[in-house]
Amino acid sequence: MSQYHADYTNFQVSISREEALKQLIESYEALCDGQNNWVSNLSNLSSLLWHCYKSLQLNINWAGFYVLDNNTINKNEQQLILGPFQGKVACQLIPFGKGVCGTCASTLKTQVVKNVHEFPGHIACDGKTKSEIVVPIINQVANKCIGVIDIDCLDYDGFSQEIDGKYLEILARKIVETCKF
Amino acid sequence: MSQYHADYTNFQVSISREEALKQLIESYEALCDGQNNWVSNLSNLSSLLWHCYKSLQLNINWAGFYVLDNNTINKNEQQLILGPFQGKVACQLIPFGKGVCGTCASTLKTQVVKNVHEFPGHIACDGKTKSEIVVPIINQVANKCIGVIDIDCLDYDGFSQEIDGKYLEILARKIVETCKF
Repeated sequence: MSQYHADYTNFQVSISREEALKQLIESYEALCDGQNNWVSNLSNLSSLLWHCYKSLQLNINWAGFYVLDNNTINKNEQQLILGPFQGKVACQLIPFGKGVCGTCASTLKTQVVKNVHEFPGHIACDGKTKSEIVVPIINQVANKCIGVIDIDCLDYDGFSQEIDGKYLEILARKIVETCKF
Repeated sequence: MSQYHADYTNFQVSISREEALKQLIESYEALCDGQNNWVSNLSNLSSLLWHCYKSLQLNINWAGFYVLDNNTINKNEQQLILGPFQGKVACQLIPFGKGVCGTCASTLKTQVVKNVHEFPGHIACDGKTKSEIVVPIINQVANKCIGVIDIDCLDYDGFSQEIDGKYLEILARKIVETCKF
């Protein structure tokens, strides 16, 4: 139990990426205990993601969430809308199927992109981003995307399916269990 | 018009605090043009606030929002719930009347606190915070607090009513005009 909430963002600098991501998931579970407000939970989780990857010396420039835009739920052309994040200002709307986030939302598959400039239809919120991982948050009952976890890196090849994909997919399932959208 | 959304967070380092805060308000107005989703707008605004104050070399460690917890709207004891922010993980719930944010919410008055340790009932999310400004976001029709802008600083006496209070109060009115809560 941390004395201050801010202490949850203290990650040891000598641990492996796998250990840090396990700690992040444990911290998220502790923080959202008894709290299902998605804005509150994902705001704190953006902070955990940011400080976790920074502690691993990964040169990330954005960590946060896009969620299903409720205004488009019953429409043919759905879109994602910007949710809580840490980093520089970002695009507000992303149509399903467009760019890395939109492709993740329409295919329900994690996207690990080593070089975003080679991704067809890439939507650049920050021209300096070089690689990206986007993980779907899936309502399993309806088999629908309710949001995505999105992390951008200033270096090429910042993320792997084996480690980042694995743990962020576990985290995405925790989000579904803990948040009321 | 910026080429990338991220460019909105580029503040010149040589301008005055007053000029930087005016630029922040203009950038916020441009970003939320045609968009009234409060989560999306306040997430981008947290980023603008963070990068604006950092460009002014002010040692801030948190910038963001608490909003009225809808679960307590019709109850005698209302509370604020954590909204979008930039910085380290924070407390999720703050009762009206408690600490700097809760006092701002219950009095509808901007709180400029030179030394948080001298503020009665201060709620510490981060033990390193030394000064703070909290500005109410007010529904003028109902004369009720619908949220607060909260910025924390690692140094004493980080903020003034004359400049920070003045421009953040203008910003709070823009939030009411532009966001649907």
